[in-house]
Amino acid sequence: MLLEVIRKKHPLILNHANTVTQQHVADGISMLGASPLMSQEQLEIPEMVKISQAVVINIGTLQETTLPELILMGQIANQAEIPVILDPVAVAMPYRSDFVKRLMKEVKFDVIRGNAAEIAWFAGMSSQGQGIDADTRIEVQTSIPKRSAQLTEAVIVQTGATDVITDGKRSWRVKNDNPLLAVNVGSGDLLSGIIGSFAAVTKDYLQAGLEATMLMGAAGQLASAKVHNQPGQLMPALMDQLYAITEKQIEQISEVNEE
Amino acid sequence: MLLEVIRKKHPLILNHANTVTQQHVADGISMLGASPLMSQEQLEIPEMVKISQAVVINIGTLQETTLPELILMGQIANQAEIPVILDPVAVAMPYRSDFVKRLMKEVKFDVIRGNAAEIAWFAGMSSQGQGIDADTRIEVQTSIPKRSAQLTEAVIVQTGATDVITDGKRSWRVKNDNPLLAVNVGSGDLLSGIIGSFAAVTKDYLQAGLEATMLMGAAGQLASAKVHNQPGQLMPALMDQLYAITEKQIEQISEVNEE
Amino acid sequence: MLLEVIRKKHPLILNHANTVTQQHVADGISMLGASPLMSQEQLEIPEMVKISQAVVINIGTLQETTLPELILMGQIANQAEIPVILDPVAVAMPYRSDFVKRLMKEVKFDVIRGNAAEIAWFAGMSSQGQGIDADTRIEVQTSIPKRSAQLTEAVIVQTGATDVITDGKRSWRVKNDNPLLAVNVGSGDLLSGIIGSFAAVTKDYLQAGLEATMLMGAAGQLASAKVHNQPGQLMPALMDQLYAITEKQIEQISEVNEE
Repeated sequence: MLLEVIRKKHPLILNHANTVTQQHVADGISMLGASPLMSQEQLEIPEMVKISQAVVINIGTLQETTLPELILMGQIANQAEIPVILDPVAVAMPYRSDFVKRLMKEVKFDVIRGNAAEIAWFAGMSSQGQGIDADTRIEVQTSIPKRSAQLTEAVIVQTGATDVITDGKRSWRVKNDNPLLAVNVGSGDLLSGIIGSFAAVTKDYLQAGLEATMLMGAAGQLASAKVHNQPGQLMPALMDQLYAITEKQIEQISEVNEE
Repeated sequence: MLLEVIRKKHPLILNHANTVTQQHVADGISMLGASPLMSQEQLEIPEMVKISQAVVINIGTLQETTLPELILMGQIANQAEIPVILDPVAVAMPYRSDFVKRLMKEVKFDVIRGNAAEIAWFAGMSSQGQGIDADTRIEVQTSIPKRSAQLTEAVIVQTGATDVITDGKRSWRVKNDNPLLAVNVGSGDLLSGIIGSFAAVTKDYLQAGLEATMLMGAAGQLASAKVHNQPGQLMPALMDQLYAITEKQIEQISEVNEE
Repeated sequence: MLLEVIRKKHPLILNHANTVTQQHVADGISMLGASPLMSQEQLEIPEMVKISQAVVINIGTLQETTLPELILMGQIANQAEIPVILDPVAVAMPYRSDFVKRLMKEVKFDVIRGNAAEIAWFAGMSSQGQGIDADTRIEVQTSIPKRSAQLTEAVIVQTGATDVITDGKRSWRVKNDNPLLAVNVGSGDLLSGIIGSFAAVTKDYLQAGLEATMLMGAAGQLASAKVHNQPGQLMPALMDQLYAITEKQIEQISEVNEE
C-alpha cells in the first residue's frame, strides 16, 4: 500500500488552498508524513511546482485574479507529469461553473474530489447547488460519477455517506457515514489534500484515490469513536489518527466494495 | 425559540470573514445547524447573496479593494430584505472609521456586534481604541449602546463581561464573564456569525440578537466548566456545546435582565 | 525575566502573518498575555505601527503586491525604534531570496527566526532548500547562525532539534527536540510571534530571543508530556501552557548552554 511510501518519501504537496480551511489541510498532509507547500504568488509558481510531487487546486475561496496563477500551476504540473487534483467547491454555482470551464480548457486534472452535487455537474447534470452542501435530491448512483470520469478523463472521488471512486471503467464504493465529520467545515478539503499526497507516490491515480478515501474513512471512524459525539474534538482526534494509523487498521476497518 | 428553527431549516449564512478566524466562524455556524458560505470574489456576490438567508460582514482584516464588494453584498441583501450583520473590528482606528463611514453610506445594517469601544464609536464617542481590545476606561452603560442603536437604526449587541442587546428602546443585559473565552482570538467574530444564523430565521432582529447572545454565553459557560482553566481546550469544547446545547439549558443557565 | 512584564503590560504585536497559520499565531500571542494585531491593508499600516510595540513579518504566504506594505511597516517601525522580527519562510527558494533581498534593502530587522536552511541563506550558503522543511544535510553548527547574525546585524534564532540564539558574539543553544511539535504546521510561525511579544518589552533583543525560545521549548515539553504521542492534541495543549506556564517552570525545564 501507498501510505508507507508517503511516510518514507515525504513528498511535497503544493496547494492552492481554500483560505478558510488551509490550516487543517496543511496539518493533515503533515500528519500523514507528506510535506505541505502553500503559495499565493504566481511569480513563484514555476519553482514551487518544480520541487513538488503533486498539485492540489481548491476553489473554495476562488478569486478571478488567481485564474492565471492556477492555469500556470496546472500547466507546468501537466508538462512535468505530476498529478493535479481539483476540489471544485460549489461548482454548480454559475460563476464557479464558468471559472472551472475556463480552467479546464487549459489544465488536465488527474483527480477530481467533490460531493454528489459537484460531481454531477461534470456529468452535465445541472443540480440546483446550495452552496457547499451536497444536493441530497441527487440519488447517489455510481453511474453519475462514472459518467463524470469518462467526460473529464479524471479519476473521480465522490464523497458522501458512501464514497465512490471511479475512473469511468472500474468503480469502488467505500462506506463512510460520519455525521460528526460532516459537521466540521473542511473535511472534504482535507481529503483532497490527502489524495494529493497519495497521488504523489504512484502513477496509478485510481489506486491513490481509493487508498486515500479508505484512509480518511478509517481514520474518521477511529477518531469519531474516541470523541463520544463531541464534534469539536473530532478534527484534533482525526489528526492523531492520520499520524498513527497503520495500513492493517485501514484494511480491517474499511468497508469497500468493487462494483 | 429560534435555535430549533435554525436546526430544522439550515439557513445559509454568507460571510465576508476576518481571515484570521474564519475557520472557527465557519465551524461555529455549522455546529449550530446553519450552513456557512465564505466568498472573496465580487463577481459571485450577487448569486451568493441570492441563495443566502443572512449576510455577515466582518472588517477584522479589511482591505481597501474589497469595499465595492462589501457595498454590493450589503445592497443586494438590503433589497432582498435579508439581514445584514456588521462586526466593526477596531472601528475607532482612523482608517477603519473612514472605511465604515463609506460602507454605511451605501448599506443599511440590521445588527452591529462589537465590544464597548467599538459600539461607543457609533454613538459618536471617540475613545482611544487600542486595536482589537475594548477600552476598559469606557464604563459600560446601557445608555451608550442605546444611543448607538438609535443613530444607526440597527440592533446593537455589545459584548463584554456583561453583554448589552438593544434596539434603542428595549434593552437586555446578559451576564457573560468568561475570561477563558476572551483570551481566545475570534470569539467575538464567532458570535457575529451566530447572530447571522439567528437573524436568518426571523424578522425580529432584536430577538435574534438576544437569543444568539444567550446561546453564546450559556455554551461558553458549559464549555469553560469542562476545560478546567485550560483556554487552549475551550474552542473545541465550545463547538461541542454549539452542537449539543438545548434551549432548556440556555434558559436555565442564562442570567438575563431586561432594563 | 520578561514573561511577567508581557503579562503585566499586554504589548500590542502587529503581524503580517502567514495566512495558513495566523489563527495559531494570534492565539499564542494572546495566551501569553500580549495582544495580536493583524493587518492586510497598507493604508492603515502607519496608524497600526504607531500603537504597536513590535512588528512581525512572516513571508510564508508572501505576495509580490504586498512588498510596499511590508517596507512601509518595517520602515515606520525602524524609525519609531520598535523591534522588527522576520520569519523568512523558505527563503532559499529563488523568488523568495529576491523578495527578501529587496525587503532588507529598505528595512533593518532586529531578530530573524528560521530553520537551519533558512538561516544558512543569510550567511551566503546556498542550500537546496526543500520548501518549508530544513535541509538536514546542513550540519547544525553555531558558526553558521553566528555568521548570519554578523552579516545581518540581527539577533538570529535558529530552530531545530537544538535551537541556537546568537547576536554574532554571544550564543546559546537550547535543547528542543520535539517531533510532535514539528509535525504541526506553524509552530515556527508561532515562535516568531512569541519572539515579537518578548522583544516588545525590552531593548535587549538577544535576551528576548533567548527567553522566548526557552518558553516555547518548555511549554512544548509540558504539552507533549500531556498528549501521549497524539500530535493533533498538541496545539491546544501548547496554548494551555503558554497561558499558564511560570518563569520558575521555564527555568527548571530548559536545557540551555552558553557557548
